[in-house]
Amino acid sequence: MNHGDWLIEEQTPSYRTQWRVRRVLHEEQTPFQHLQLVELEDFGRALVLDGAVQTTVGDEYIYHEMIAHVPLFTHPNPERVLVIGGGDGGTAREVARHPSVKGIDMVEIDRAVVDACRRHLPETACGLDHPKVNLVIGDGLAWVAGRSDAYDVILVDSSDPVGPAEGLFNRTFYENVYRALKPGGIFVAQVLSPFFHQKLIRDVYQVVASIFPITMPYLAVVPTYPSGLHCFMLGSKEHSPLRPGIGAPTWRTRWYTPEVHRAAFQLPPVVAELLQPAAAPEGAQRPVQAASTP
Amino acid sequence: MNHGDWLIEEQTPSYRTQWRVRRVLHEEQTPFQHLQLVELEDFGRALVLDGAVQTTVGDEYIYHEMIAHVPLFTHPNPERVLVIGGGDGGTAREVARHPSVKGIDMVEIDRAVVDACRRHLPETACGLDHPKVNLVIGDGLAWVAGRSDAYDVILVDSSDPVGPAEGLFNRTFYENVYRALKPGGIFVAQVLSPFFHQKLIRDVYQVVASIFPITMPYLAVVPTYPSGLHCFMLGSKEHSPLRPGIGAPTWRTRWYTPEVHRAAFQLPPVVAELLQPAAAPEGAQRPVQAASTP
Repeated sequence: MNHGDWLIEEQTPSYRTQWRVRRVLHEEQTPFQHLQLVELEDFGRALVLDGAVQTTVGDEYIYHEMIAHVPLFTHPNPERVLVIGGGDGGTAREVARHPSVKGIDMVEIDRAVVDACRRHLPETACGLDHPKVNLVIGDGLAWVAGRSDAYDVILVDSSDPVGPAEGLFNRTFYENVYRALKPGGIFVAQVLSPFFHQKLIRDVYQVVASIFPITMPYLAVVPTYPSGLHCFMLGSKEHSPLRPGIGAPTWRTRWYTPEVHRAAFQLPPVVAELLQPAAAPEGAQRPVQAASTP
Repeated sequence: MNHGDWLIEEQTPSYRTQWRVRRVLHEEQTPFQHLQLVELEDFGRALVLDGAVQTTVGDEYIYHEMIAHVPLFTHPNPERVLVIGGGDGGTAREVARHPSVKGIDMVEIDRAVVDACRRHLPETACGLDHPKVNLVIGDGLAWVAGRSDAYDVILVDSSDPVGPAEGLFNRTFYENVYRALKPGGIFVAQVLSPFFHQKLIRDVYQVVASIFPITMPYLAVVPTYPSGLHCFMLGSKEHSPLRPGIGAPTWRTRWYTPEVHRAAFQLPPVVAELLQPAAAPEGAQRPVQAASTP
């Protein structure tokens, strides 16, 4: 890719997004994935993995505030937090803001992502070097499989369920997450778009709901992700994210508020229907019914 | 455009969306705009005006339910409704579902849009031929300027503020809308994306807030619109959209619920800041700060 080129992200075989690239800052094939750091004209510097935009300076705060603050304010006193993935550091940055949090283990599989973000995305990478953060370069699956009763909150800030993140979307992983959580523990995983990944969301919901007493998806808008609507799956041992009296940030946020938190759980009927196994016709993975001309 | 081509929508000079076209159903230059009816691989049949996707069978229900039901359930007894624009018929279709509504005047400037949608988008165009609907081919600005105390709800379902819809975004128009509304009347206008049209949203908010005692923007996700996040501006003479006891649909909806209604008004801080005139730096029309490499 050259300066001035378009970065073209294939969302489906028939739907693409094009971003004009002002500068290419870094590009390499890591042992795990194709890694690019680019500067987009409209959204600023961005992390791109295997051709998919992961993080941009322009809208990263929405994703990172929503994956972190929803579970951390749902938990009455989160002290120990595990972040799986999240190599850009944005999730750790938001977790570290919570005064109750004493320690954050962050397990990212690809050192090259961390190194490149430290050089080119300091806005998020500052999270990697926060004193509360213990950064581990390693396999999140193995890490979580070896822990029990260790964390109050676990955040799965992975890339999409292909490539290195594939194992983060199956039953064994979620059973291990449950075991790794303390009583009252909560986890959140990003599960992509309700318009483009219906089968994934349905499958993850069914698995998580069979393990956690409280399982609730929530939604946030992320303009640079496909369809603009992003879904997070929350599993909780005890505390409901809609319980009265959840806390509020004592610092300035750009997207999260307690009201936005509650609003994120108000699922439109077409999204709520994804949670019912019987309602799934074959081929429901398409974003919408492809209508033929009458 | 040919079958199998990509429809490329330029959202900004540096950000584009590409849709693969399965079939081209209709294409013409009308006296007002370039009109295309195409069938997209992923979102089905679609109305495209001047190169911008306006309506797709795949996600039109979100936009139409949210522009119609939010004001119509806010009003305790809407009987007379005016729709300006909305040539595809989807807004009229949703308005007509309300049992209290007795008559809908719909004023669309471009007969060619109506004709083409009747042929190729019956899912929305059914609204054009509902017995409650009085369809007028004409200028919505002139229509509303000639009315007073005539409507309970006015919906401005226009295309973007360039071309034929340009006059729908200035003070005189909103003053006329106020006069055309009965006591207790409510209007809603679509005002595009909080990420790409910040100045427009700020300007419209300031004007409407200087005319209507209650002015509240609300948000909805529309995947085929730029950034996926769409903003609506609601002006109300008396009734708050957050008043207790708003009604609920007695029919099946796909996106709207009373909970989704309330959630739509919970603005994230970066959106709420758009409503403060002092907070507007020059050039704030860009979606986000274009960050330079540190």
